Amino acid sequence: MIDVMPRRNFPSSELLGHRKPLGVVGGMGSFATAKFLEVLARKSRVERDQDHIPFICLSDPNIPDRSHAISIGSNAPLRQILERACWLEKAGCGAIAIPCNTAHLWATEIKQALSVKLIDMVEITRQAIEDSRGSEAHNLRSISLGTIASMQNGLYAGPNENDFGKECFCSLNKLQLDTIKLIADVKSGKVTEARDNLTKLVQAARSFDPDKIILACSELSAICGDLADDNDIVDPINILADACIDWWIAESQSPPDMLANRSWGQKR
Amino acid sequence: MIDVMPRRNFPSSELLGHRKPLGVVGGMGSFATAKFLEVLARKSRVERDQDHIPFICLSDPNIPDRSHAISIGSNAPLRQILERACWLEKAGCGAIAIPCNTAHLWATEIKQALSVKLIDMVEITRQAIEDSRGSEAHNLRSISLGTIASMQNGLYAGPNENDFGKECFCSLNKLQLDTIKLIADVKSGKVTEARDNLTKLVQAARSFDPDKIILACSELSAICGDLADDNDIVDPINILADACIDWWIAESQSPPDMLANRSWGQKR
Repeated sequence: MIDVMPRRNFPSSELLGHRKPLGVVGGMGSFATAKFLEVLARKSRVERDQDHIPFICLSDPNIPDRSHAISIGSNAPLRQILERACWLEKAGCGAIAIPCNTAHLWATEIKQALSVKLIDMVEITRQAIEDSRGSEAHNLRSISLGTIASMQNGLYAGPNENDFGKECFCSLNKLQLDTIKLIADVKSGKVTEARDNLTKLVQAARSFDPDKIILACSELSAICGDLADDNDIVDPINILADACIDWWIAESQSPPDMLANRSWGQKR
Repeated sequence: MIDVMPRRNFPSSELLGHRKPLGVVGGMGSFATAKFLEVLARKSRVERDQDHIPFICLSDPNIPDRSHAISIGSNAPLRQILERACWLEKAGCGAIAIPCNTAHLWATEIKQALSVKLIDMVEITRQAIEDSRGSEAHNLRSISLGTIASMQNGLYAGPNENDFGKECFCSLNKLQLDTIKLIADVKSGKVTEARDNLTKLVQAARSFDPDKIILACSELSAICGDLADDNDIVDPINILADACIDWWIAESQSPPDMLANRSWGQKR
């Protein structure tokens, strides 16, 4: 475990009531973070403001580019992601969500550094795909659309020559390059243009007849709209939001005597 | 000034770099908070993740209904809003934004309790309307669509009999009742239905031929989409996002020697 934070007293988090809020490490990127929070609010399906999931979102986006760092063998972003996650834990959060797929290449290190749960977006997405496919899961032909690092490191076990045949390799490479451009467009606010291009990208991906197309970058989830409802599309941000809601419901059902023993705002 | 927070040491906010982040009091409601953060990200128009505005959003929605409290003469939500705003200040935030119009009925008390700036959404919206109208500002015929409390307390100096004539009073009352239902729909996640109804509501408001229609509740801003671009529509959330970006640009241009003297994570 990397000790990134000076050990100081944290203020009382009593204002957060008797349930620990969700901690969200934001800023990777900022638009995608906002869209994740929107999905979280929309999927909560509660009647009143007061019943929504409490959260603290720390969005300090000054983290080195994850994909670039990994491509040059650098761990530079990890330290900053850990700082933010640990800050949220010390602020009293009961679980951490990171709405960035590429950051999950360090999921093991992040889990080791935290005393509270990391709601691991990649792990639960893989599980959701497996659950939906049953015994056929291991024969799944999937195409992941994401950053170079998440593709090259097989974050969601992307396409390979065996799955789609050698003749597809160049076309899949083109798809990957188009995806990277599209992600950059979303990050720089060219959202309308990017939405149209995502539709084209998904059409191109469908020409390979995959079983699943995984939106393996939260910038794509942020602009996918109704596409996420299609049977062949896997949207990890949607799955993360569901898991956060499940976590919160389970927390809310914890017996009061367990809650009374919690040390608010202190590391457990 | 109400002293709501126990005075304890706050952890170092050095991880936030050398600029104090924006503090966002969220949860009023959660969907509207997410949409504000989306507007903030979209309007920032920067090329890279790293250049977006850093923020901490504390969204603990367990705040009593603002409109109801005001209608019964209660200040109950104020204490909780102050707790959250002061928590953000102690966490190292350099300014506070509250993407909720009704909460601004307590803007004076909130400003008194904070050492850092409240970016006052109502004040800047009024100013923006005045600026856009020039010498005609005082003759402005506006219709505000918002909560009962913000309407009855003239948050944005809503319609009165003098503006629209006595015969309009009942129709304007109906508009107000429809607005309240629509706000409740957004809060409970019926977003698609609410979007259609907002279009109808704005059409109905336009039949009175007002100069401006003010979306005086952040739930309406959250679903207004392209409507906000129309000349007669005033969207305070858009104006708040612009003001936060202006604040951040000004902060970023502060001379380094001034920044070096800042006491991070401590009350100034």
